[in-house]
Amino acid sequence: MLPLFDLKGKIAVVVDILRATSCMVTSLATGVEKVIPVSKVEEALAYQGRGPLIAGERGGAKLQGFDLGNSPFEHMNQVGKAIVMTTTNGTRAINDAAEAEEVIIGAFLNLSAIKEYLISKTEDVVVVCAGWKNLYSMEDTLFAGALVDALGSDWEMDDAALAASTLYRSVEGNILGFMQQASHVKRLSGLNAEKDLAFCFEHDKFETIPILREGGLYAHNTRN
Amino acid sequence: MLPLFDLKGKIAVVVDILRATSCMVTSLATGVEKVIPVSKVEEALAYQGRGPLIAGERGGAKLQGFDLGNSPFEHMNQVGKAIVMTTTNGTRAINDAAEAEEVIIGAFLNLSAIKEYLISKTEDVVVVCAGWKNLYSMEDTLFAGALVDALGSDWEMDDAALAASTLYRSVEGNILGFMQQASHVKRLSGLNAEKDLAFCFEHDKFETIPILREGGLYAHNTRN
Repeated sequence: MLPLFDLKGKIAVVVDILRATSCMVTSLATGVEKVIPVSKVEEALAYQGRGPLIAGERGGAKLQGFDLGNSPFEHMNQVGKAIVMTTTNGTRAINDAAEAEEVIIGAFLNLSAIKEYLISKTEDVVVVCAGWKNLYSMEDTLFAGALVDALGSDWEMDDAALAASTLYRSVEGNILGFMQQASHVKRLSGLNAEKDLAFCFEHDKFETIPILREGGLYAHNTRN
Repeated sequence: MLPLFDLKGKIAVVVDILRATSCMVTSLATGVEKVIPVSKVEEALAYQGRGPLIAGERGGAKLQGFDLGNSPFEHMNQVGKAIVMTTTNGTRAINDAAEAEEVIIGAFLNLSAIKEYLISKTEDVVVVCAGWKNLYSMEDTLFAGALVDALGSDWEMDDAALAASTLYRSVEGNILGFMQQASHVKRLSGLNAEKDLAFCFEHDKFETIPILREGGLYAHNTRN
């Protein structure tokens, strides 16, 4: 539920930097045909043995019986496959944003592609941060700030956008250092946490924009 | 309604910098005995002719038949009087925060007094921004950031607090200039707008903390 904003007629950029939307951009940019976001574990398990890879986490850990967790490196180069994905917040945010005119998936990994895409459109834009429903999320706010900053001063922005872009500009020189103070990073642990974190903050690694169509995410390549 | 946070057992610092809580701090610091925050215009009008001054605005303009508007200069030096006050967001935020262990009123005008008061307490603190229910408010976020910054690094903070304090530090050298880009300032107009704005961002003019007791706000003076 997104009780605060009316998304009708707008483009919703859904973002869950750590790590759901970073995974989605990575998988679709490196050969996956389709990502199906589902909110519940049982919905994902219903796809078991029917073709798609099942991916998901709860509380940051890979779910039992699932093919993939929530590290973007697991989602890389799964050429030709479909992935059914459920995460704590990211897939829920996508489904909640469905009333928007268009739902696209953002990450630092495809930031410039998102910017170019939005510049080519006339609709208003809402950045839907996955952590939004319950708590403010630093990494998602920084993405929103980076996007506002990239779009430039021709765009009208509300106070939240102004605050996010000002915050982003004040920390962009040392974003990984700054993120050490953020709640999500304090919670991350395990062998791949640091590698995942660095990857999820890489800018413009891909030109792919995942777009939601009939419940599935498909690659839109800006250079096509 | 504050659906996102459980305020029970916590100290709520309610803030509506432009201009409700700046008015409340000013009036109680300069001689007013009691401020009664009410949500509705009719509730305020019910006090007419019964002693208190009636103060309020809607959309930034003084209401018809009211004694005072929403400029802190009107609320100054009303010695010995009571003020019944209704504003678009500020008084509603106070009433919505009533389930907190304690409700106190913050503004830049009493920032250090608030800091000292909170340091003397053991409870968790939630800064309740009046613009919060509907939209992010720049001026209230900056107050939250200034307070977090003043409290120092011994306090545990969530991402919203970290973001607010980082934002505050990046603009504190030119806060009035930065505020020219904020939505509320763009909406402010009239003869006193600039004077009010400068006053509302003055730090530590007063040592008075308005505290909510049985529906009324009373002065707590930190040097008493």
